[in-house]
Amino acid sequence: LCPPGVLPLCCRPPAWDRPPGLPLAPCRSFSNNKIQVELDESSGVAMMKFKSPPVNSLSLDFLTEFSISLEKLENDRACRGVIITSAVPKIFSSGLDIMEMCGKSTEHYAEFWRAVQEMWLRLYGSNMVTVAAVNGNSPAGGCLVALSCDYRIMAENPKFSIGLNEAQLGIVAPFWFKDTFVNIVGHRIAERSLQLGSLHPAPEAHRFGLVDELVPEEKLLERAAAVMAQWLALPDHARQLTKSMMRKALLDRLVAHREEDIKNFISFISKESIQKSLRMYMEMLKKKKS
Amino acid sequence: LCPPGVLPLCCRPPAWDRPPGLPLAPCRSFSNNKIQVELDESSGVAMMKFKSPPVNSLSLDFLTEFSISLEKLENDRACRGVIITSAVPKIFSSGLDIMEMCGKSTEHYAEFWRAVQEMWLRLYGSNMVTVAAVNGNSPAGGCLVALSCDYRIMAENPKFSIGLNEAQLGIVAPFWFKDTFVNIVGHRIAERSLQLGSLHPAPEAHRFGLVDELVPEEKLLERAAAVMAQWLALPDHARQLTKSMMRKALLDRLVAHREEDIKNFISFISKESIQKSLRMYMEMLKKKKS
Amino acid sequence: LCPPGVLPLCCRPPAWDRPPGLPLAPCRSFSNNKIQVELDESSGVAMMKFKSPPVNSLSLDFLTEFSISLEKLENDRACRGVIITSAVPKIFSSGLDIMEMCGKSTEHYAEFWRAVQEMWLRLYGSNMVTVAAVNGNSPAGGCLVALSCDYRIMAENPKFSIGLNEAQLGIVAPFWFKDTFVNIVGHRIAERSLQLGSLHPAPEAHRFGLVDELVPEEKLLERAAAVMAQWLALPDHARQLTKSMMRKALLDRLVAHREEDIKNFISFISKESIQKSLRMYMEMLKKKKS
Repeated sequence: LCPPGVLPLCCRPPAWDRPPGLPLAPCRSFSNNKIQVELDESSGVAMMKFKSPPVNSLSLDFLTEFSISLEKLENDRACRGVIITSAVPKIFSSGLDIMEMCGKSTEHYAEFWRAVQEMWLRLYGSNMVTVAAVNGNSPAGGCLVALSCDYRIMAENPKFSIGLNEAQLGIVAPFWFKDTFVNIVGHRIAERSLQLGSLHPAPEAHRFGLVDELVPEEKLLERAAAVMAQWLALPDHARQLTKSMMRKALLDRLVAHREEDIKNFISFISKESIQKSLRMYMEMLKKKKS
Repeated sequence: LCPPGVLPLCCRPPAWDRPPGLPLAPCRSFSNNKIQVELDESSGVAMMKFKSPPVNSLSLDFLTEFSISLEKLENDRACRGVIITSAVPKIFSSGLDIMEMCGKSTEHYAEFWRAVQEMWLRLYGSNMVTVAAVNGNSPAGGCLVALSCDYRIMAENPKFSIGLNEAQLGIVAPFWFKDTFVNIVGHRIAERSLQLGSLHPAPEAHRFGLVDELVPEEKLLERAAAVMAQWLALPDHARQLTKSMMRKALLDRLVAHREEDIKNFISFISKESIQKSLRMYMEMLKKKKS
Repeated sequence: LCPPGVLPLCCRPPAWDRPPGLPLAPCRSFSNNKIQVELDESSGVAMMKFKSPPVNSLSLDFLTEFSISLEKLENDRACRGVIITSAVPKIFSSGLDIMEMCGKSTEHYAEFWRAVQEMWLRLYGSNMVTVAAVNGNSPAGGCLVALSCDYRIMAENPKFSIGLNEAQLGIVAPFWFKDTFVNIVGHRIAERSLQLGSLHPAPEAHRFGLVDELVPEEKLLERAAAVMAQWLALPDHARQLTKSMMRKALLDRLVAHREEDIKNFISFISKESIQKSLRMYMEMLKKKKS
């Protein structure tokens, strides 16, 4: 017996009924430098793997390739969902590339920040089902990528952490990072976590809903495919309108203040005190390497 | 000893001090077709029972009767609170009647949608204390009725489920369904639940606050009466102003966009693709019956 | 090994690196009547103790002293954080002084309400790290003081309770009390708690996030100092900008409606029915004493 109000599978139009099972039999793959994309046409699911060692930094090039890949998939009628993960061990993405924010021209800062905005607008506003399979550390901009998806599964490894830790570097997450975060964990947890620049170990992140579930790392992609199948069982049109209803206000807010947001970023990042903090941080990273 | 800042019962004006004990000794009862209403003048509590078999669908007639009943009680100085439950086994309400949305005229759709709005404006904005005693399945519009009350108690039967499952039928809950839901469970849970059109079994619904508590079905009304007594122990005036402060922004938003919301509904429901979905759903329901 | 994206202590500018250890070696102390303030210059942490027996009522004098103390510390470059606690056993603060709202002139009500607003604007908008060490009952305005801090630690004594219980007295918390509360516990819990005028025992308050943690009463100040050190480990500038980003909308809302809010208060408190409730409450308190 079917509970009242539920449309049983037998009544669904054929298009909704495509078996979305994985593992993916790759059908088309984009030739990219920093992101590997494979679309399985039978399931309608694309696998997007970040492969920009050592830490999948969100450089200008990376962001541009990310946005173009998302646009291609969005316009491909064969694609209904994307799983986002990393091909680099232990790291999902380390976030915005500090090199792009250090000692560059005003024009460069503007171009870089516009690329960050563009990536978020495409990902947070995507019509596709987006599932993040977080298989490593995911600080700052890396966390934003995960937050912008429809669902987050993380490897249940307490050594992996996730969070908007900008305050630790002496910088501030912009309002749309903050609002994306608040929409997921609520105002209070966001207020505390953002002020402390907290990086939450996977179990803690799961406890307050920053990620939706934890699975052993080796089962991450399998579980992502199962979750994707669950979301794709819904009619696309109704799901997309519902998603838009939930996210439109926030997307519109950035679109309306995009140039102002770029100006704010340039003015903040150009400050000598901020540049000094970032240079010290980069020095420290270099010493670590050698 | 009385904790600081608490007004002890002894200081309360007589009107606040009426013993609200149940079971109700029915004093007045409305003669209705689809909803049975009994007001106990000694406690100031009305019991409202949906009795429109087979599934308490929110038809135009049902909604009209519901709104008129609420208005009568609202204007009755003897009434301070309402308990809403179902007289039909296993179902609280199946939600909006699909017959009213299928193959009808534009005028009919407008009249129907205005009645849905009217019901919600009266219930969500009621000055009375409203307690939902959810004694069965409560999908879609049935869930909205429960969400619009001040407190939700559900039978702790895992076979009973509740949720805004519109997406499963290929349709989309309007913004005020969504906002009512977000106000109770938060943005993240609402986003996921609405996109998946989830129907949550009672224990799950309780876990994330969609219902406030679970009790064995046979104790549902007894517990509803006890909760009502707790809420009625507060001075009406302060409680009503507080409720209005919490709900006014959302109520005002629908009032300001009421005609636009009706137009949106008509334009959406008139689409051939949507009509086809609903016809298929109704065919399926008919086959089940026979 | 340092997790990616975290600025290690070694790279921090000297100002961020001051050891904030406690117990405080008092360096400067203000001579006040109702609030004792001691600033430890080595840690940058001030200890603020309410000492206005019997119940630390927020009278006009108390509020004025509170605002002036906050302003002094805010302008003192040696001070980066404040711990707020009570020197009166079993009570943090009983909230707004009812004497100030009973049988006074319109001018007095206006002056009093402006002082309440002033205190909240300074505390909720403070650039300093503010930690509430709630060592006793904390109803109504006492709860607001705690809610306005960055972090709340409460003595794990189930006899101590906290909440915005205005509805119990027949009065209504203003919108900015409500919004401060909603930002911490979410819309649903706030709606229910405000309507019922609930005073939550410490364990319950902790369960839904009204306070951040519970510790045995004798360890309250020690733990507050440790939490303070954790917050002060962050660069002030980034933390302050982040705090402002989270709280500015709400602060701006009161600033924009300040005069209107005063008028509302005067008109509400001047009603004969409200005055009668408050007089009855004061009578009851007097009887208790004798």
